[in-house]
Amino acid sequence: MKGNIVVGQSGGPTAVINSSVAGVYAQAKKLGVKKVYGMVHGIEGFLEDKLCDLDEYLADPTGIERLKRTPSAFLGSCRFKMPKIEGHEDVYEKVFEIMEKHDIECLFYCGGNDSMDTVKMLSDYAKEHGKEQRFVGVPKTIDNDLPITDHCPGYGSAAKYIATSMKEIIRDNESFGAKKPTVCIVEIMGRNAGWLTAAAALSKDADCCGPDAIFLPEVDFDIEKFMDKVRELAATKSSVVIAVSEGVHDANGTYICEMGREVAVDAFGHKQMSGTAAMLAEKVAAATGLKTRAIEFSTLQRAATHIASLTDINEAFQVGADAVKAAEAGQTAMMITLERNGDDPYQCGTGAQDIHYIANVERKVPEEWITEDGMGLNEGYEAYARPLIMGELLPLYVNGVPSHLVRKK
Amino acid sequence: MKGNIVVGQSGGPTAVINSSVAGVYAQAKKLGVKKVYGMVHGIEGFLEDKLCDLDEYLADPTGIERLKRTPSAFLGSCRFKMPKIEGHEDVYEKVFEIMEKHDIECLFYCGGNDSMDTVKMLSDYAKEHGKEQRFVGVPKTIDNDLPITDHCPGYGSAAKYIATSMKEIIRDNESFGAKKPTVCIVEIMGRNAGWLTAAAALSKDADCCGPDAIFLPEVDFDIEKFMDKVRELAATKSSVVIAVSEGVHDANGTYICEMGREVAVDAFGHKQMSGTAAMLAEKVAAATGLKTRAIEFSTLQRAATHIASLTDINEAFQVGADAVKAAEAGQTAMMITLERNGDDPYQCGTGAQDIHYIANVERKVPEEWITEDGMGLNEGYEAYARPLIMGELLPLYVNGVPSHLVRKK
Repeated sequence: MKGNIVVGQSGGPTAVINSSVAGVYAQAKKLGVKKVYGMVHGIEGFLEDKLCDLDEYLADPTGIERLKRTPSAFLGSCRFKMPKIEGHEDVYEKVFEIMEKHDIECLFYCGGNDSMDTVKMLSDYAKEHGKEQRFVGVPKTIDNDLPITDHCPGYGSAAKYIATSMKEIIRDNESFGAKKPTVCIVEIMGRNAGWLTAAAALSKDADCCGPDAIFLPEVDFDIEKFMDKVRELAATKSSVVIAVSEGVHDANGTYICEMGREVAVDAFGHKQMSGTAAMLAEKVAAATGLKTRAIEFSTLQRAATHIASLTDINEAFQVGADAVKAAEAGQTAMMITLERNGDDPYQCGTGAQDIHYIANVERKVPEEWITEDGMGLNEGYEAYARPLIMGELLPLYVNGVPSHLVRKK
Repeated sequence: MKGNIVVGQSGGPTAVINSSVAGVYAQAKKLGVKKVYGMVHGIEGFLEDKLCDLDEYLADPTGIERLKRTPSAFLGSCRFKMPKIEGHEDVYEKVFEIMEKHDIECLFYCGGNDSMDTVKMLSDYAKEHGKEQRFVGVPKTIDNDLPITDHCPGYGSAAKYIATSMKEIIRDNESFGAKKPTVCIVEIMGRNAGWLTAAAALSKDADCCGPDAIFLPEVDFDIEKFMDKVRELAATKSSVVIAVSEGVHDANGTYICEMGREVAVDAFGHKQMSGTAAMLAEKVAAATGLKTRAIEFSTLQRAATHIASLTDINEAFQVGADAVKAAEAGQTAMMITLERNGDDPYQCGTGAQDIHYIANVERKVPEEWITEDGMGLNEGYEAYARPLIMGELLPLYVNGVPSHLVRKK
């Protein structure tokens, strides 16, 4: 590669999105790329020429190790949707103008569904206007809902956090025994796809019964069926712990968390959810008189790098590095994918797929992995997900707390 | 010691309450005690003769290491208040009858304020009725509100979890930058004492600005002052993160979480709190139009053994062991205390104090450690708390998730 490159981060952060930046940087430097720029706050910042030089942070090899241990978007993220090309050519020209100004030959963008649309739009524009710059997507999302790729970097670490925290919550909830059964409802992220909520099932092992029921948005939520299940569990168990996706909705598509209140909407038109567990806990308490507790993992499920999966960190690094290799080989309008070769032992390589098959497509939990009663996951999911949470990378503790790498402001 | 002993766990669990049981067991075995029994669900289970033999779990030395890594009350906990002696002699006689049945010479009880009352009542009864059995309290509470002892086992690990999670939340909240400032309000446990909420301050370091404001129950909460602070922060910062105790209340003593709803009450007459952050986030959103987020750490702050403090684990073990030493020396009606000899380097020994000075007394965060504006902690708190969160004990990961020791049912 003769020119420089730039890497950006977009959308909701993950525990390992910075490992992908580290992978891009490390591979580019191996190939002799002179400057590896970072977009400050994604394409939105790039349009304002906000760049940083990653040599400043990563030239020292301990920088890469520290970056791998740093949660959230090191470069800053954005939620910026590229406008349609027609009538907005100026926005596109601005991107290419800034690329040319810094002699940037390739642009790498780490993100999920919405962010891959940016890669698609920019590469479409380049093709239409005979521009030579190349654009490669680096998959990233805790939601695990990108199509084609076996799974998404970011998911394994979120799943490990969820499985670990769920196990700790189950232990806690059991402590008072049968005389004081508490019904604990844990709300997990996932607007339309239940991948994250499914990860609650990974808490089950020889030393943990796992959650008593799991409600995914893939299955229409029936409040009566839910209450019957709670009553049945409370009658026989000394502790009831239920995992519920923030995105569960009834057969009409009405989100449970929408019932009885207004819900805000973000730049992409997605509803801002939360409050599902609290609402269900209130209903259970009112109907049964049992003590209830509502827990939301909230942003910690995407930020808890202190318990990230080593498999996930390594794969996030790998897709970053392989995006650079793909661009070096002349590819553009692609996203790097993870391609699984086996579950046991787990083996996974990478590929590259046309961005047009990926952008704006959502993948849900397959029906065959959901138990017949619609309230759990079976061994198919376990075989798929367990390898993704394996391994740990010890945080660098300073003053008793994990240390992070910080971008100068 | 000629007879056997029994150890019980009571009240809300902590990340290290099991290390105290391990300490009791290990020291008793060193002294040649034949049987170390565990009460199943505290004094409530003991009254029903529900005991287990700890040899079954801990005779193998890996058992102790696994127990140290197990959250929540391994033996099962209870919230049982001993009745006043007069008119309830039968309850007390029952305790001694079961002790005699199993040749139990000493009873050790791990708990907080309410549980130390059980030790006091039982030792008072023994004294009044010429019984020879001995009773020693082992301090345990995430709330850190026991008097006399420098701090309480359980607090350091909760503080480490809070500081780590707060740091991860701050990083996450910063990711979208100044164009989309989000006001994030984090609710932390602590009914009357702000020790846990204060721990949010420990997230501050060279790589983290720490929370922008901290509201403790020690300072009367003024909603107007709070809103002014939020507006001031939002005008200058790209991310606002505020830590607030679940127990904040106005000058009349009305809890913020009580405003506009009914609050349940537990066996000790304590109000069950939560919803403070959600209520404040709603008020901020309504008043400023800013995006807000409410996060509650909920039970994870007492259950997250995966990130327990090694200092805390070791001290929890030590107070368990030293309780046995005190009983061996003939002491009764005592609680083991932690006595600090220095901050830097941190040095801490143990002592034993008359239970009558401890039971039912609550210690709050000293005024001199709260900043003048009442919205933060100063270096006095830092010097006190930082040593308590130092060090880590690597979990035993099995199938990608921390493994726990489980009592057979």
